[in-house]
Amino acid sequence: MNFLDNIRSSKDVKGLKLKQLPQLCKEIRLKLIRTIAQNGGHLASNLGVVELTVALHYVFNIPIDQIVWDVGHQCYTHKILTGRQEKFGTIRIENGISGFPKRSESKCDPFGTGHSSTSISAALGLFEAKKLSSKFGHVIAVIGDGALSGGLAYEGLNNAGRLNKNFIVILNDNKMSISKNVGSMARYLSNIRTLPYYLKAKGNIENAILGIPGVGKKLRDLIFKSKAILKNALYEGTLFEDMGFVYYGPVNGHNLADLIKVFSAVKQIDKPIFVHVNTIKGKGYYFAEQDPKTFHSVAKFNVKTGDGDIASGDFSEEFGKQLCTIASKDNKICAITAAMTNSTGLLDFSRKFQNRFYDVGIAEGHAITFSAGLAAGGCLPVFAVYSSFLQRGYDQIIHDAATQNLHIIIAIDRAGVVGEDGETHQGVFDSAFLNPIPNVTVYAPTFFDELRSMLYLSLYKCDGVVALRYPKGKEPQKPENFLSDGRAPFYVYGDINKKNAIITYGRLFSYACAAKKRLAKHGVDVCIIKINRIKPIDTSIFKVIKNFNLISFFEEGIMCGGIGEHLGYMLKEQEYNGNYYVHAIENCFIPQASVTKTLHNLGLDEDGIFNQFMADVKKIKL
Amino acid sequence: MNFLDNIRSSKDVKGLKLKQLPQLCKEIRLKLIRTIAQNGGHLASNLGVVELTVALHYVFNIPIDQIVWDVGHQCYTHKILTGRQEKFGTIRIENGISGFPKRSESKCDPFGTGHSSTSISAALGLFEAKKLSSKFGHVIAVIGDGALSGGLAYEGLNNAGRLNKNFIVILNDNKMSISKNVGSMARYLSNIRTLPYYLKAKGNIENAILGIPGVGKKLRDLIFKSKAILKNALYEGTLFEDMGFVYYGPVNGHNLADLIKVFSAVKQIDKPIFVHVNTIKGKGYYFAEQDPKTFHSVAKFNVKTGDGDIASGDFSEEFGKQLCTIASKDNKICAITAAMTNSTGLLDFSRKFQNRFYDVGIAEGHAITFSAGLAAGGCLPVFAVYSSFLQRGYDQIIHDAATQNLHIIIAIDRAGVVGEDGETHQGVFDSAFLNPIPNVTVYAPTFFDELRSMLYLSLYKCDGVVALRYPKGKEPQKPENFLSDGRAPFYVYGDINKKNAIITYGRLFSYACAAKKRLAKHGVDVCIIKINRIKPIDTSIFKVIKNFNLISFFEEGIMCGGIGEHLGYMLKEQEYNGNYYVHAIENCFIPQASVTKTLHNLGLDEDGIFNQFMADVKKIKL
Repeated sequence: MNFLDNIRSSKDVKGLKLKQLPQLCKEIRLKLIRTIAQNGGHLASNLGVVELTVALHYVFNIPIDQIVWDVGHQCYTHKILTGRQEKFGTIRIENGISGFPKRSESKCDPFGTGHSSTSISAALGLFEAKKLSSKFGHVIAVIGDGALSGGLAYEGLNNAGRLNKNFIVILNDNKMSISKNVGSMARYLSNIRTLPYYLKAKGNIENAILGIPGVGKKLRDLIFKSKAILKNALYEGTLFEDMGFVYYGPVNGHNLADLIKVFSAVKQIDKPIFVHVNTIKGKGYYFAEQDPKTFHSVAKFNVKTGDGDIASGDFSEEFGKQLCTIASKDNKICAITAAMTNSTGLLDFSRKFQNRFYDVGIAEGHAITFSAGLAAGGCLPVFAVYSSFLQRGYDQIIHDAATQNLHIIIAIDRAGVVGEDGETHQGVFDSAFLNPIPNVTVYAPTFFDELRSMLYLSLYKCDGVVALRYPKGKEPQKPENFLSDGRAPFYVYGDINKKNAIITYGRLFSYACAAKKRLAKHGVDVCIIKINRIKPIDTSIFKVIKNFNLISFFEEGIMCGGIGEHLGYMLKEQEYNGNYYVHAIENCFIPQASVTKTLHNLGLDEDGIFNQFMADVKKIKL
Repeated sequence: MNFLDNIRSSKDVKGLKLKQLPQLCKEIRLKLIRTIAQNGGHLASNLGVVELTVALHYVFNIPIDQIVWDVGHQCYTHKILTGRQEKFGTIRIENGISGFPKRSESKCDPFGTGHSSTSISAALGLFEAKKLSSKFGHVIAVIGDGALSGGLAYEGLNNAGRLNKNFIVILNDNKMSISKNVGSMARYLSNIRTLPYYLKAKGNIENAILGIPGVGKKLRDLIFKSKAILKNALYEGTLFEDMGFVYYGPVNGHNLADLIKVFSAVKQIDKPIFVHVNTIKGKGYYFAEQDPKTFHSVAKFNVKTGDGDIASGDFSEEFGKQLCTIASKDNKICAITAAMTNSTGLLDFSRKFQNRFYDVGIAEGHAITFSAGLAAGGCLPVFAVYSSFLQRGYDQIIHDAATQNLHIIIAIDRAGVVGEDGETHQGVFDSAFLNPIPNVTVYAPTFFDELRSMLYLSLYKCDGVVALRYPKGKEPQKPENFLSDGRAPFYVYGDINKKNAIITYGRLFSYACAAKKRLAKHGVDVCIIKINRIKPIDTSIFKVIKNFNLISFFEEGIMCGGIGEHLGYMLKEQEYNGNYYVHAIENCFIPQASVTKTLHNLGLDEDGIFNQFMADVKKIKL
């Protein structure tokens, strides 16, 4: 690490000579591969932007110039170059640095990201703020081709395209989002990606014409005598120029000299600029280049062999399997994903039922409204989506699906805490934000067979919007003598004649059962009620629970507006005068740590349930 | 009404001769103007699409062919032509027909709308459903240029652009959305709008070149010998062609023959089609053509003079005034609107502080993230938006603003029931959906001076996301001896030593005070607690309320997950053992009726509060 060792800040990059930069990039790649092999993380996307990032730091003055990294999982090199090299080994670990840009971490991260397609809007805000306060500096949004399929990115372009100041959008075009990129924008990019390298500003097309051997000048003259429509067709080159940007590219994203030349040129222009950079996802690491999908986000892996832990036997896979089983008997069933075919378990479905499978790009809003359209046309759409990304289709759930009581299924993956991705990815709001919406039913399976039967119920025994929420990871342990397939709205585990009860749903039931065993050893008997259908809660539950002296509710979700509070109000309405306590996620965003550790920190694992319940028992004894 | 009287269904339109259609359009216009003058409604946009709608019904087979009207407020002619002529006088009236397309109303409304930019996604769903079930028929999305600024429309285009079947998007380009259309897409449209009329499909450009006098053939030959880049520039005409559509247009939207010719042509083509139609908002009614903004959505008006009720002295205006006052002293303050400059009260601001005013188009997601960017750069952004449209920026509130605890103000206009627009526009979810989000504060002013002081508090005494929610319409009546400017988190009106209390917030406080008077006459004394800051609720409230024997909570918002339920749980936690009942909006979407009538129907006006409270009193006596 000849060069990297001496990089303490962005300025040190500028101290290097152009010819030294390739070596710096090599060293950075090595660091990336070694660290991610250890900690897990987004390997392929980070390897793809090493030169791009180094070139940006070489040309721009960070942090006076500000970079907003779209999605943000490709910010590792940026972190290494901005004073976080020493902490880099702690990336994605509890109390370590984040795998995403974070304002609280560094002045060089002007805006935190995590979800897709936000960078142009956020950068435009930073840009206008600079303008209004007469502060210097450029603002740059770096966005991937996948993120460009999100409507928010388009809204940003639409607003930035009318500026008459320097505002830079860099398209990091690696020909794929997390899944293969889809849609007509992707096709369009692949068309212009293959054009010869040229810097195309107004006038350059003329030079291009003049350069055509033999006929150049003649042609130019003819064209300029011709109709306006033709001139128009020539001068309005790319879609991005139509949107008001000066388009530069495509630039080879691994050629430092080219990148530096272009960045230096575009920072001089008082216009919105769109720089199209071609990069290779996984660049410089054989296994990642060969299989960028797998290496998009990885757990630990062996650097030499590329072998790593492959998530399998998890809820996503189980969901995908079951959906295939049902779909093979019912051709009304369609599956929809927002660029998450693999990770939501839909790979098999996409292969077996190609004509009923829709990858809509990173476009959750569209996914919901499109599903509502499918339902209005008589299909049975199932949209599989991570909990935290479902937030992006909120109005569409209310306005397009629920208002019309259209029957769509939302398979909410990664519901609950998700671990190392931290604040922006936790799936802890869905129970609360779905709860107020009429015509919505929500199921919360704990075990695989429940997932299967609830999927069946959702499809064939419900109407309106039906959501199934299940966590990241594997099936939790089943307690002894557990006899339920999840079809009943709730399930009683234990003796209802005891004084004390725990109520919970989803994965926590398993931990509650383990806590119950320990509580018994301490002389505290407890009955556990597991809610299977968390919205609407079946009112027959009150007959069962109203005689308990103490009810503690445990919830892997936000407290405020959650199921526990809602049940609490219903109990009050039912004139329940026993003791009722809710243990859920207090008013905060949950930082990164492993799922196990996070649940522990929140008091929602076996230990936490045991301790909090004991405390509740003591509270009422006082 | 020679022709219109005989139109019972879409088929009857086809029975007319082409030359008879202009008379039909005239008759429809007359009916539109007369009815809307009586009932209020969206005048200008409906007048603009009379020929467009008639031409669609002339060419297509409704309901086998399906039309999705974006936003939907321009569907009046469509309703008149599809068996709803007789009921047309009931439009927007309680129990009458809706001012928007409604599946429940007619088979000719395949998908309900209300919010902007959903049509392409929904139509694509209907289209795929037809394909999968081998049903016949075309699917057509009709979208305005304003709605095209919404990201969801782009997500729809991106997904539709790769079809190889007939799928039709019609752009109803009237050069404005509700406010003046903004952004680079609007500029782009205005460029291509002025091009000469031509039907441009692949190959036609070649004909255009060949048609250039003298040099045509030579030029064509030269071009085809030239580089791919040049050919590309020629063949990829409009941005919509870049997005995979076959582009037709611009077509004069008031020339029936042209419209019918184009629609007949495009239905033959197995490709996604984009038909660009130029229309004039307000066409055929002098006052509306002159001032389409005012006639976009109107209350009753005089047909002869164009004079109508102009909303004034309402919360929106008061908000705008106060924001101007503060902004004149603080140049950090920026105002943001999503195409609602007038109706959110920002017209003055937009004139006085042009450089700090941002109309971002119909792009609520962008508006939030952009505001977050402004805040990250040190500005004080205030985004004014209708409650029901705020749903479209939900993830942006959580992910871009709240997670980073960025200080943005959301001025939530039309919070609560909104009246004649019905289900899709009611602002009854915001209290519930904001409640779960950490770093969010919500104020609910009842009176104008409270709005003023709460705006001040929001800007200067809070951090993170701060929302102010206020209703549509005028300031409600102040009760006698009311002494508060809304700075305290709650306000006690009456004697806290009484047995009974009503707790409420926002506009209902005024009705509760009126009910209190009537209750007193019936020998029931009640203390009223008005919550000013509904999130977080100040815990000092419990000292005040815990001694009441009966607390009834009245809420102009959804019950489930609302403030009443939340307080109910907190009371339980505080070991309150009195009686607590919440009266809010039960699990339903609220149909159209005037605001007054809606509040009455919901039991949330003076009568309702009186009656429900009396019932609560009786309940506990039993």
